[in-house]
Amino acid sequence: MATKQWVYGFGGGESAGDASMKTLLGGKGANLAEMAKLDLPVPPGFTITTEVCTEFYENNRNYPADLSGQVDAALAALEKKAGKKFGDASNPLLVSVRSGSRASMPGMMDTVLNLGLNDDTVEGLAKLSGDARFAYDSYRRFIQMYSDVVLELEHGVFEEILGTHKDTNDYKSDVELTADDWKQVVSEYKRAVQRELGKPFPSDPKEQLWGAVGAVFASWMNDRAIFYRKHNNIPESWGTAVSVQAMVFGNMGDTSATGVAFTRDPSTGAKKFYGEFLINAQGEDVVAGIRTPKALTKASRLEMKEGGESLEEAMPHVFAELVAVYQKLESHYRDMQDLEFTVERGKLYMLQTRNGKRTAKAALKIAVDMAAEKLITQDEAVLRVDAAALDQLLHPTIGAGYKRDIICKGLPASPGAAVGIVVFDSDEAERLAADRQKVILVREETSPEDIHGMHASQAIVTARGGMTSHAAVVARGMGRPCVSGAGDIRIDMKLGEFRAAGRVIKKGETITVDGSSGEVLFGAADMVQPELTGDFGTLMEWADKARRMKVRANAETPADAATAVKFGAEGIGLCRTEHMFFDAERIAAVREMILAEKPAARVAALDKLFPHQRKDFLEIFQAMGARPVTIRFLDPPLHEFLPHTEEDCEDVAKATGLDAKALLARAKELAESNPMLGFRGCRLAIVYPEIYDMQARAVFEAACDVAETGDAPIPEIMIPFVITRKELETLRARVDAIAAEVFAKRGRRIEYLVGTMIELPRAALMAGDIAGSADFFSFGTNDLTQTTMGLSRDDAGKFLGAYVDKGMLERDPFVTIDVEGVGEMIKIASERGRKTRGDLKLGICGEHGGDPASVTFCESVGLDYVSCSPFRVPIARLAAAQAALAKRG
Amino acid sequence: MATKQWVYGFGGGESAGDASMKTLLGGKGANLAEMAKLDLPVPPGFTITTEVCTEFYENNRNYPADLSGQVDAALAALEKKAGKKFGDASNPLLVSVRSGSRASMPGMMDTVLNLGLNDDTVEGLAKLSGDARFAYDSYRRFIQMYSDVVLELEHGVFEEILGTHKDTNDYKSDVELTADDWKQVVSEYKRAVQRELGKPFPSDPKEQLWGAVGAVFASWMNDRAIFYRKHNNIPESWGTAVSVQAMVFGNMGDTSATGVAFTRDPSTGAKKFYGEFLINAQGEDVVAGIRTPKALTKASRLEMKEGGESLEEAMPHVFAELVAVYQKLESHYRDMQDLEFTVERGKLYMLQTRNGKRTAKAALKIAVDMAAEKLITQDEAVLRVDAAALDQLLHPTIGAGYKRDIICKGLPASPGAAVGIVVFDSDEAERLAADRQKVILVREETSPEDIHGMHASQAIVTARGGMTSHAAVVARGMGRPCVSGAGDIRIDMKLGEFRAAGRVIKKGETITVDGSSGEVLFGAADMVQPELTGDFGTLMEWADKARRMKVRANAETPADAATAVKFGAEGIGLCRTEHMFFDAERIAAVREMILAEKPAARVAALDKLFPHQRKDFLEIFQAMGARPVTIRFLDPPLHEFLPHTEEDCEDVAKATGLDAKALLARAKELAESNPMLGFRGCRLAIVYPEIYDMQARAVFEAACDVAETGDAPIPEIMIPFVITRKELETLRARVDAIAAEVFAKRGRRIEYLVGTMIELPRAALMAGDIAGSADFFSFGTNDLTQTTMGLSRDDAGKFLGAYVDKGMLERDPFVTIDVEGVGEMIKIASERGRKTRGDLKLGICGEHGGDPASVTFCESVGLDYVSCSPFRVPIARLAAAQAALAKRG
Repeated sequence: MATKQWVYGFGGGESAGDASMKTLLGGKGANLAEMAKLDLPVPPGFTITTEVCTEFYENNRNYPADLSGQVDAALAALEKKAGKKFGDASNPLLVSVRSGSRASMPGMMDTVLNLGLNDDTVEGLAKLSGDARFAYDSYRRFIQMYSDVVLELEHGVFEEILGTHKDTNDYKSDVELTADDWKQVVSEYKRAVQRELGKPFPSDPKEQLWGAVGAVFASWMNDRAIFYRKHNNIPESWGTAVSVQAMVFGNMGDTSATGVAFTRDPSTGAKKFYGEFLINAQGEDVVAGIRTPKALTKASRLEMKEGGESLEEAMPHVFAELVAVYQKLESHYRDMQDLEFTVERGKLYMLQTRNGKRTAKAALKIAVDMAAEKLITQDEAVLRVDAAALDQLLHPTIGAGYKRDIICKGLPASPGAAVGIVVFDSDEAERLAADRQKVILVREETSPEDIHGMHASQAIVTARGGMTSHAAVVARGMGRPCVSGAGDIRIDMKLGEFRAAGRVIKKGETITVDGSSGEVLFGAADMVQPELTGDFGTLMEWADKARRMKVRANAETPADAATAVKFGAEGIGLCRTEHMFFDAERIAAVREMILAEKPAARVAALDKLFPHQRKDFLEIFQAMGARPVTIRFLDPPLHEFLPHTEEDCEDVAKATGLDAKALLARAKELAESNPMLGFRGCRLAIVYPEIYDMQARAVFEAACDVAETGDAPIPEIMIPFVITRKELETLRARVDAIAAEVFAKRGRRIEYLVGTMIELPRAALMAGDIAGSADFFSFGTNDLTQTTMGLSRDDAGKFLGAYVDKGMLERDPFVTIDVEGVGEMIKIASERGRKTRGDLKLGICGEHGGDPASVTFCESVGLDYVSCSPFRVPIARLAAAQAALAKRG
Repeated sequence: MATKQWVYGFGGGESAGDASMKTLLGGKGANLAEMAKLDLPVPPGFTITTEVCTEFYENNRNYPADLSGQVDAALAALEKKAGKKFGDASNPLLVSVRSGSRASMPGMMDTVLNLGLNDDTVEGLAKLSGDARFAYDSYRRFIQMYSDVVLELEHGVFEEILGTHKDTNDYKSDVELTADDWKQVVSEYKRAVQRELGKPFPSDPKEQLWGAVGAVFASWMNDRAIFYRKHNNIPESWGTAVSVQAMVFGNMGDTSATGVAFTRDPSTGAKKFYGEFLINAQGEDVVAGIRTPKALTKASRLEMKEGGESLEEAMPHVFAELVAVYQKLESHYRDMQDLEFTVERGKLYMLQTRNGKRTAKAALKIAVDMAAEKLITQDEAVLRVDAAALDQLLHPTIGAGYKRDIICKGLPASPGAAVGIVVFDSDEAERLAADRQKVILVREETSPEDIHGMHASQAIVTARGGMTSHAAVVARGMGRPCVSGAGDIRIDMKLGEFRAAGRVIKKGETITVDGSSGEVLFGAADMVQPELTGDFGTLMEWADKARRMKVRANAETPADAATAVKFGAEGIGLCRTEHMFFDAERIAAVREMILAEKPAARVAALDKLFPHQRKDFLEIFQAMGARPVTIRFLDPPLHEFLPHTEEDCEDVAKATGLDAKALLARAKELAESNPMLGFRGCRLAIVYPEIYDMQARAVFEAACDVAETGDAPIPEIMIPFVITRKELETLRARVDAIAAEVFAKRGRRIEYLVGTMIELPRAALMAGDIAGSADFFSFGTNDLTQTTMGLSRDDAGKFLGAYVDKGMLERDPFVTIDVEGVGEMIKIASERGRKTRGDLKLGICGEHGGDPASVTFCESVGLDYVSCSPFRVPIARLAAAQAALAKRG
């Protein structure tokens, strides 16, 4: 094996590495090297690369042969820069040993501080610092930390020793312990180690160093780290680097300090220096929260009404230096930075810099501000905001300070929060809402018959169903918060209550639903309304300039259509027509149509529906103006429109005059084992062509009506569930014939398209053929995912969680497109379709259209547009822009 | 456009065409040309090609410009050969005009005889024949036929005229009419034509000829022909040819005759000349059945106990000539021929020869005999027998003469016939069968809980479900006749009866089920048992030599396994393990396992199942010897094993001591909207690994047991419903670990494979990846069809019929693989899988494995084996041989 550079030194104004080498040096190591290069005050050190970690695991936990020599050389260089010697009793070098992966994994892996101390060097430290208490305190901290991290001893042993020591001396707090006390504790600690492990605590600093390095690499595979990686999509193969750095001490008296800082406010994005510090403390003390840190600036201190002094006041020179550093770093990195620093006896040391985590709101403001400051370009600003996080800005939320009284948890099925009183029945929800009451619908699960109740409610809670259950999909479409699959709740309709975790909530009691977290709270929470501020609009404008794909919305009511336009939708990508059939006025005619035995009777029933459909389309066309509207003709199996139980049939019979027995018989006849794969979509129209005929006539009549006084609508008629060209060809011919007839009668032509959903694997494979009869394809990725993966979205909740946890699937494929499987189907269909017809319009409708990762995929295969629920349109706009920019490189 | 040869003449010992030109000349035209070339006595004529038909339809029903000239030339040549002239009053040429497609479409298209007659030529005919009555009879036949076929007049008009004429003259039969009578009838016929059409009957023979040619081409598009083509997979684009041939007359007195003959017996295949004839008759008289034809040979006549004379006796010279012709034709065509001949005044004319249709039994015998006679090779013999028709020979059938009293019709779901008494309940079926009663199970539909009842029954009838419903699939697997989806029947369990078409059948009444026709008959029909004669075995032997693919069976009991071996299976391709769980002794433990909340309780329940599973596998291994056995681990969703209603849960609770409420709750929890796409297959084992662990242990323990005393079994463990490599890898690791453990304990190694079903589109696409962990793939084409096409096989019955009728799909994709869609999935998976692993074993299990067309597809993609139900193994063996031979060319 050729020799490799396994170790990269930094400090003293020079570095072997730089910020671009995160893959090799980890985030921490790369940024330390970069800061050293920038001549910032970084304690010198060296980084052992992530490749060592990979080698280590590939070679049965053995290091590369030449690592040891390279570490020795780096250590020698470090000693030279620090002017101290590792293990030298008179002038000891102490080091920290820290992990550092390519991606930040805060707190997941182990760290050892003060390494290099033993019975000899502790005396040297005492002399050098002139503070024996500090030296022995550092020593005992080291033994504790090393024993925990490297020797894997229970820390209880040490706590007990310290406790006993304090009790014996009647000390209340650690501060009371003297240098001698700590010395005594140290020897007791060491005895304990000998007792527990049968061998002494290692006193050789080199042995200590290799022990710590090994522990950091081992921590890459600890349970916490594995879990974190899984949930943040970090590949195991990346490995961690190890940074070894000369110790500096913030705990050497009142001229020392340690702190963290952000170059801008990470929660609001405001351009002000922001952070906390502690005098006479080590970094871990800030994190541990034993003492309360102080604000860095005077302004912040006053704002927070803190006493004492800010760093600005306490150490004005150090503060000034820190300000200079932060300005240099922010303009160097061209992003908001999260800094760690230590002041050792009046001298500032930088221990870390990285791009700071921030809230969605802050991300938006920082990006727009930085572009205004010309620090970054508008395109870069667009790339800086996490599209998925944008969702937080588009819905009401619960106030940050509100104390949550959680009743139960479910899936965060539709974001936003809402307050209302509990109802269990959709009709009642509608009735109460008409009385201006705010209601929350709580159901076992919802069905198309609950649509009116869902519309009337502020939010929806269901006991069953996943992220793509009926409730979830419809709620997202309507922009209603929803918690689905709250499995702990038991609804008792008779008693008018639900139970969860031993608690009973009665009908009419007030609850709050947080659809973003999946929590249901007791009582009315404080609400924060979304502000679609100027920054939001500005960023969206920039995004719109950057993107190639169009963004449409899935909408089926004039209100939804209006919302979609407000959020920037450029058309409707999916107007489902089935929900239109559930309206009380119409369902009777729908049922009559379903019961019809002869075409004539079917046509008579459809004639009753026609004026309603025409009005539906008319209103949607009016809302959308000259934007295209994709109308999907009737899709669900007919049994969804029928009552199912004997009782329901009798109720319906009484209300409508239809025959109860006939209803029940037809419902039984139409019942299906797997309705997802059943008699639905274009199959209905092949057998009962009258249905689509009526819908086509309604579309064209409405379009002509609207065109008479305003913009000519652009209807795009979509035939669902096609598997052969013949189906599309046959149904298209009828649509074209009806169009011709209506246009002739009205003396007006409307441009329209006829296309199909590609939602079954066969359709994807046959796309070349089908494209011969299609003006466009819209990928119905929900159904395509169901069939490609053999996963019913209504049922997958039972095991999908376990599947993702166990790594069988990387993510929930109903949230983000399964690129390898479903994605390839889309790719195959796109390529074959476009080969037949170069100008074939390609889009995606369904849930994935609002998921940024899926939008990125859509850009990669060259779709023309994505369509998603109105409330996710801004997310899709931003994601489409980011995908386009990323593709451009 | 370059000039083409549209017309091909034949006769007088020469022909422009020959037998190889069926595509261009149609079957009839090509064979007439061939016979003329062979110097057989064929009346001269010419054939207008199928290309003219295609041109005709492509050019808006216009003929190619140069057709008319070519017809004139052919007619002139014909006149010369015949020594007569078309339209010549003194020596008139009369012709027949017949259709002839590439494939035989008997009776579907139109024919005109005696064309060329008019008021002048009829006199010539009368003179030439010396028989005015014959001439005028021919003339009136011509007018009738031409008016029907070409002029599209209702034939009632003519029947009325003839009837009136007979009444007036008090004639009882046509024979009494004299020449003058016919002459009078002719003029009345012509008047009627003038009256109906407003123009005279065409007297110009050329006009008559073009009218008839046009009518034949038009008949290609009549409803009958379209229907026939659809049901026989004949493409519209083939078109028909038109043969125009000099008329010869079998009705010129007692030295004239007409007949049909087969060179071997078409129903038994016996090597004897066989046929019927009529003295003084035209071909249509034989077909029409007004007079009863006589046997050709004396032997046949005696055997049939007919009076009168056979042709052999009546016209010994003609008979001898016919025998010489048939021998020449059979050895020339190397196949059994179906001949038409006419004798005109003692002279034999051949009007047609073609390969004769035959029963499956005859096909088998003829093929084997001809190979023995060295007329054909063994490979040709293999190709001569329709593999699908072989099914008729493998099951009991209803005697041909039995008069069927049909109660209702359903789908022919599983072939064969059986007699038994009606029962409606599986437990009762089992009980009665134990009392040696023969029962027929009649159910709304069946579920896995009916398995024991189906086993106990002679046959199964269901009111619901398609060709691949549970009942159909299981019945085929067991070899029980089954009629499924008999939608007309209404079962009333309470009254213990079912109704169909107004008839009531009580429990205990005897019925007969014909699973081959889909009929349910009242009473006990006469049964014919299958004879797996020597010919059958011989042909199978030749097939086995010719095929490349192995044939396995789907079997899950030792009895099924034994049947499979008897029918020549070379292994088990699918041993489902779920049915093993339904046994009364076991289901309690299965339910206990499903109710278990903790792994330990689950393991405890599985421990109870273990000895049963071990015994299951042991017995199957014993039955299969050293043949491979593919064992599919548990596949169905767990709710299939639970009772569903409150009542059932209580019953089960009483019987087992399990908690009724817990049962119902768990059943509800596990219930699924689309169980086909649910929590099943390897998903169960990922969440509850204990289940497959038990199954793996049972396999390996049983294999070791069997190996101790006999052949070492070859288990092939199949993990179902995989969509990612990770699933297979994870479960395979557990299987391998258990194997190692068992082998270590037993001190014995068993060779085994671990593979997966490819039954979901994602698995097919990811096959390259998945093959990295698989030793074999078995295509589960039932599920792959369901997901690729979005078709639930349990539900598709509602529209699949209409779909095929309307041409949306060519065939039922659950019967024959949908090559374009599902087939491409299989191709993709095979290619990708083999790219990763060149020696990957590929097979197909599921229903398609026994369908000849699907087997041909499997050969084309290079699968290693097909697997089907035991009773279809011979069909698959033959189909595999035919596919291999066809591929070899």
